[in-house]
Amino acid sequence: MSKGTEDLDNLIALMAKLPGLGPRSAQRAVLHLIKKRSLLLIPLAEAMHRVGSTARDCLNCGNICTQDICDICQSEKRRNGQVCIVEDVADLWAMERSQVFKGRYHVLGGTLSALDAVGPDELRIPKLLDRIVSEEITEVILALGATIDGQTTAHYIADQLPGVTVTSLAQGVPVGGELDYLDDGTITAALNARKAL
Amino acid sequence: MSKGTEDLDNLIALMAKLPGLGPRSAQRAVLHLIKKRSLLLIPLAEAMHRVGSTARDCLNCGNICTQDICDICQSEKRRNGQVCIVEDVADLWAMERSQVFKGRYHVLGGTLSALDAVGPDELRIPKLLDRIVSEEITEVILALGATIDGQTTAHYIADQLPGVTVTSLAQGVPVGGELDYLDDGTITAALNARKAL
Ligand SMILES: [Zn+2]
Ligand SMILES: [Zn+2]
Repeated sequence: MSKGTEDLDNLIALMAKLPGLGPRSAQRAVLHLIKKRSLLLIPLAEAMHRVGSTARDCLNCGNICTQDICDICQSEKRRNGQVCIVEDVADLWAMERSQVFKGRYHVLGGTLSALDAVGPDELRIPKLLDRIVSEEITEVILALGATIDGQTTAHYIADQLPGVTVTSLAQGVPVGGELDYLDDGTITAALNARKAL
Repeated sequence: MSKGTEDLDNLIALMAKLPGLGPRSAQRAVLHLIKKRSLLLIPLAEAMHRVGSTARDCLNCGNICTQDICDICQSEKRRNGQVCIVEDVADLWAMERSQVFKGRYHVLGGTLSALDAVGPDELRIPKLLDRIVSEEITEVILALGATIDGQTTAHYIADQLPGVTVTSLAQGVPVGGELDYLDDGTITAALNARKAL
């Protein structure tokens, strides 16, 4: 194959690796990008390059940001003393979309898993225990998936935190469901109906 | 809002403009990109940049390529004398996916439309008439959508080409349907059952 379509084929193949796009929708997306070259293709290339060189994990909570400490951790408008624990950044963003939670977050980076040999030190659990003390946290809200590993992790964390109120999202999280796919209303209901463990 | 999430929000907003992605799937795609930074995000930024600076219309047929003349127009393996006329590049790519057509293409860049004031000179029709002579084309296959404008365009082109066999894709193109969304089998059937206008 000549140089003629190599760049295009390469771009289509890469786009097809995005979640939600397949080979054919990747072709459509690439044609759309070329039609909107200055409005979309070039800005998107630049935005990706920028995020690729600046995105990193917040040193405090594990959220993705472009500084050492993320906006949420830095914000003076967020409630202190209350931290919501999520498995990953997608779940944090899902919580934020519901706009109902005003405290801070802590991203574990997964769940405990005997099968996958994920222990507390593989997750951001030691840092959580530090924060409980340093940020004088009085309530921990567990927003973990309703999976076996999620619930194992929830109970493990609750056991580590005597003297702290530990609640968990209750109503609305479907069994086996992933938080990131829930609608905002369900997340709001689950947060409002949180129950003590 | 501080610099913290500006780059990320910008990237998500741009990704959400891609066909097939919405705001939420754009968030998921961006998280996926950041997780696969060196395997996907950086290569994708570079591929977009490259395509953004090199992609252009083939001077002969209107296909998108990165040279003056596209691979298909240059190929010695494609059949001469037979040209398939499509509305846009997405339709050309859909034809190519079916792998049944071995001739050349001509991309009109749209259809004639009284409503939108699109006349023959707004499309790549003058260039088509040149090619009929210069490339000694004996058969024109019209692969235009089964819309009113598509059929108007088909008849207009057929009228311009006395002495040339003009056929059109027949069986399988749904009324009001767009070629780009057809499966390969339907395109193959439609090409094989093409009928003289
Ligand atoms: Zn943070
Ligand atoms: Zn060409």
